[in-house]
Amino acid sequence: MHQLQAAGRAVRAMAEWAKQLAGIKGVMLDISGVLYDSGGEGGGVPIPGSIEAVEKTRLNCGCYSTHAHVDMSTAFAMIKASGLKLRFCTNETQATRGKFVAKLQRLGFNILVNEVTAPAPAACRILKERNLRPHLLVHDDLVPEFDQLDKANPNCVVIGDAADNFSYKNLNEAFRVLIGLENPILISLGRGRYYKETDGLKLDVGVYMKALEYACDVQAEVVGKPAKMFFQSALAEMEVEPQQAIMIGDDIVNDVGGAQQCGMRALQVRTGKYRRTGSQMG
Amino acid sequence: MHQLQAAGRAVRAMAEWAKQLAGIKGVMLDISGVLYDSGGEGGGVPIPGSIEAVEKTRLNCGCYSTHAHVDMSTAFAMIKASGLKLRFCTNETQATRGKFVAKLQRLGFNILVNEVTAPAPAACRILKERNLRPHLLVHDDLVPEFDQLDKANPNCVVIGDAADNFSYKNLNEAFRVLIGLENPILISLGRGRYYKETDGLKLDVGVYMKALEYACDVQAEVVGKPAKMFFQSALAEMEVEPQQAIMIGDDIVNDVGGAQQCGMRALQVRTGKYRRTGSQMG
Repeated sequence: MHQLQAAGRAVRAMAEWAKQLAGIKGVMLDISGVLYDSGGEGGGVPIPGSIEAVEKTRLNCGCYSTHAHVDMSTAFAMIKASGLKLRFCTNETQATRGKFVAKLQRLGFNILVNEVTAPAPAACRILKERNLRPHLLVHDDLVPEFDQLDKANPNCVVIGDAADNFSYKNLNEAFRVLIGLENPILISLGRGRYYKETDGLKLDVGVYMKALEYACDVQAEVVGKPAKMFFQSALAEMEVEPQQAIMIGDDIVNDVGGAQQCGMRALQVRTGKYRRTGSQMG
Repeated sequence: MHQLQAAGRAVRAMAEWAKQLAGIKGVMLDISGVLYDSGGEGGGVPIPGSIEAVEKTRLNCGCYSTHAHVDMSTAFAMIKASGLKLRFCTNETQATRGKFVAKLQRLGFNILVNEVTAPAPAACRILKERNLRPHLLVHDDLVPEFDQLDKANPNCVVIGDAADNFSYKNLNEAFRVLIGLENPILISLGRGRYYKETDGLKLDVGVYMKALEYACDVQAEVVGKPAKMFFQSALAEMEVEPQQAIMIGDDIVNDVGGAQQCGMRALQVRTGKYRRTGSQMG
């Protein structure tokens, strides 16, 4: 009897999910908090497949409404079987894209480097275009991503998820570079507030971005979710229009809000940093 | 000839200064950046007496106007000779008030503990009144100020100028306490952006307050300048009315703005963090 009830729920969930997918040609997937929780010795643990997801669609009035409860394993199977285009959109900046993908492959995910849109390569393009020489406040493992850039006599600060590198000394150093510039430019690889690692919640780059913004009275330029340009670049790489794409992530601001601002649909999953009580923060 | 010119300038400065002092019965003095620059082996160096000061008075339209250039040594001599009430108002939270005053005495200043208004003792009063048990993110040397408070099972976070204690680990710990509270209370011992030490500019508590505010979507309660209650408490201790008092400090927001919000007059000195070019920040 219990099994029959579960099967009934799954069928209903699939039917609702299929309705939501009408017209969708491409799916963007967040990685951290959706596919795996980062942290620990192995670099993270995959999230089990039986995950409830809640579709949030923006109504004309600008409010959110909660539509369908979907089993995530069902959703994954449907994406793979349907011939939909799939792209991974991450704000992960604790490692180069190559190292990050290698870790996910070790964890059992079938992902290639060129399927991933990440902030650091996007930032590098911007820095080159604008002849900017960055002072880096990033994770040690992300530094090689900027190898080809001139970093002498910096004329901007780039901040990523530096984790333990967010010492008082390092933040002060970045501050002194910024406050010493006639035209202070702060580029932030995301604006996330926190994320979940295996041993608990951790402060994300957005928190330190806000700190430097306040210290120097500047506004950071955000590369990464929820920046419109980041989603547009991923859409171009998938060759689909915004209204043909859906973003699946655990972050109401960076994933859901960012995608919807771009005209995409979005799904929030109840994993990662999702907290049943209290406000949902990016 | 050169000396005569200098004497002439001093006389004009004194005349203008005296006009500004009309009706003044009490003077509040900032300490860091006005009396001394902190940092280094001895804990800081006194600022030489020949300091230009610029009075900023708020006009009815809400703008500032720059009035009088005053030699600071002249101002100090006049305060002492005139029988004006004198009180020291500091946002210093790197040491207990007792230790801080002892350091200033070693540097040659004639200051007593009970002449100083500082944020930590004010915060202790508030915590006791509201039965709050603080998680402290402060400088090691400030901890004894909170000795008499219950700190088990914290129901608020108190943040001060923790300097090197602002590690990623410690900020994350404070964040986890806050985000875990049903009603998150963040008390900040000031909202300064940066201050000057002997070896350069240093990030102040306000920067980390903003970081935690953003991480947890809360608004901190500020104890210390520029909070109105802080100035009111100093006025009460001096037994003068706001319009009878003048604040002298190097910070346009915390000293000048805070005092003016209280109905006091204010003087900004061009020492400490004052920067001739660029915006003036608290």
